Amino acid sequence: MSSTGPISIHLLGLGRVGRAVARALLRDQRGLVALATVEDRSGVFRIDTEAPDATDRAISIKEGGAPLSQTGLDPWPEDRELGSADLLVDLTASDRTHTRICKALRQGCGVVLANKIPISGDAEYFRLIQDAAQAGNASLRASATVGAGLPVMDALVQGARADVCPDRITASMSGTLTYLLEGLRAGKALDDHLAEAVSKGIAEPDPTVDIAGRDVLRKATILARLSGLSDRVLERESFAASGATRAAGEAIQREQSIAERTGQAYLYLAELTAEGIRVGFRRVKADSDHARVSGEQNVFVIEPGPGVAPVSISGPGAGITPTARAVLRDVFTIAAGDPGHLPLV
Amino acid sequence: MSSTGPISIHLLGLGRVGRAVARALLRDQRGLVALATVEDRSGVFRIDTEAPDATDRAISIKEGGAPLSQTGLDPWPEDRELGSADLLVDLTASDRTHTRICKALRQGCGVVLANKIPISGDAEYFRLIQDAAQAGNASLRASATVGAGLPVMDALVQGARADVCPDRITASMSGTLTYLLEGLRAGKALDDHLAEAVSKGIAEPDPTVDIAGRDVLRKATILARLSGLSDRVLERESFAASGATRAAGEAIQREQSIAERTGQAYLYLAELTAEGIRVGFRRVKADSDHARVSGEQNVFVIEPGPGVAPVSISGPGAGITPTARAVLRDVFTIAAGDPGHLPLV
Repeated sequence: MSSTGPISIHLLGLGRVGRAVARALLRDQRGLVALATVEDRSGVFRIDTEAPDATDRAISIKEGGAPLSQTGLDPWPEDRELGSADLLVDLTASDRTHTRICKALRQGCGVVLANKIPISGDAEYFRLIQDAAQAGNASLRASATVGAGLPVMDALVQGARADVCPDRITASMSGTLTYLLEGLRAGKALDDHLAEAVSKGIAEPDPTVDIAGRDVLRKATILARLSGLSDRVLERESFAASGATRAAGEAIQREQSIAERTGQAYLYLAELTAEGIRVGFRRVKADSDHARVSGEQNVFVIEPGPGVAPVSISGPGAGITPTARAVLRDVFTIAAGDPGHLPLV
Repeated sequence: MSSTGPISIHLLGLGRVGRAVARALLRDQRGLVALATVEDRSGVFRIDTEAPDATDRAISIKEGGAPLSQTGLDPWPEDRELGSADLLVDLTASDRTHTRICKALRQGCGVVLANKIPISGDAEYFRLIQDAAQAGNASLRASATVGAGLPVMDALVQGARADVCPDRITASMSGTLTYLLEGLRAGKALDDHLAEAVSKGIAEPDPTVDIAGRDVLRKATILARLSGLSDRVLERESFAASGATRAAGEAIQREQSIAERTGQAYLYLAELTAEGIRVGFRRVKADSDHARVSGEQNVFVIEPGPGVAPVSISGPGAGITPTARAVLRDVFTIAAGDPGHLPLV
């Protein structure tokens, strides 16, 4: 990473989070970081740091649905690969950025991820990223991928560095599934309520990854890897195995009723231990931290080990603003010289 | 800081936390850090890293109440100042370590604090520490000083770096005062209950600093300084202004009853905003995160700003094990190359 002048940033992906991050970086007056280039499917474009207003207007055009190539920004003259940036920020939801991330890290370019896919897939791919970070002595931070607004990842990474892994982490970390469970509890039909969640933007247009429990599993995998716990998948129970049908919803509602009659709540949780990851439904006491979750909140309960009381962290775990803020924190934390979340071992 | 071999550590203070930290460092087999020297009022002593068992036995002797000079450890032959360590760890409760901390930082030696005093006093003293850290390009971390077991400080420091200070922080962060409030609520007399807290080791032998609200104010001052909020003291209400008498307890009990009748709880909180710090009694809703605090738990509620829901962090905020763990996390985080909690500006 260059040691003089501001850290120059290449922003990959200009969706809603990407545009919020881009605007915050354009408006930052402290000279610590500079947005150098942005990229979407239509190409790579240069940001004129002398003309932030013009860039802001170009991003507004993108907001209206146009590709970057139609915003009036100057194309980046070099190849499509990362320009001359010190920091690559991946705000896509693409499964095709892994190679670029590895390449950037090997060249000493830091990486900030809001994209979960590059670090939640095969253990082999994760190892390649760790190796690249080590080879390039480059920082990678990924606070936005799990519990975006919450200080979960740093706490766990620091624990792992000090060789004090927690005994157990339980997490409620899907805003979509929490929303669906709340609707079911209020007597709504699952299929109707899911359609509503999609139309409100709470669920993805294709909610399959959420409904299958795959999004929660991705987050749990990242959490396990960065906290030094096992990323072995012991169990993944689908939220609605047969699809988000009315009947699947009724089955969940029966379980909710049974739980409530005994002072419990029926929730979809991830559980991480030294043995591995379990993702699925659990009954918890109605007055527990997990049962208090609502809306887009996430709840993480970290059990540090014998003789120490659990730590509970709750708050907004997703959404545009918390995610954009998490990305910005990661960018400035790397700019301050932080060694990042990788490599741990 | 030396870039080859393990980071060598000078441990200042070998009370209960100090001994827990020393033992963990002696037992760490990864070669990342090495306990080089230890110090108490009787002098500075060298640790033979080849003979961890012998050092462990010496620390046991210290545990029995003997000064380090009687434990059989070899005295450090040089002057009383920091030897050749890369990292100074201040685990005293002394108000006389400030000069040494500044000197260490200026020389490029990192500093980890469990001692609140050096960074919670005069703003001028804090400025000297910031300047020294900047001059020596040295890391200072102080996670153990506030909410020891909780990831509060890093979250706030990272927010401040990204120029996103929270709107408001409210914190319940005195195990002693929480214990006293619980006793009063159960009908106990304040003077008796305080004596019990002292005999159990929950309160300090001289609980004046706690009772006057000065310990909470110290923590709030540190939190404000490291999160970029104002450290101006707008209000400090004593927990028991006239001393911890039976009458003072009865006055608190009357307020507790009034609060309970309206579905509230009467708590001793710190409130931080851009304007400054207020420390004193507040009424909060009985089902709020703060009202759920018990025992040695701390609760921090961080209100990030418009349009983002609050983040709530609770768990063990003090005690030997959480404090020692926080110190170890800070030591290994600096060993990994972290820029530390200072300087922020």
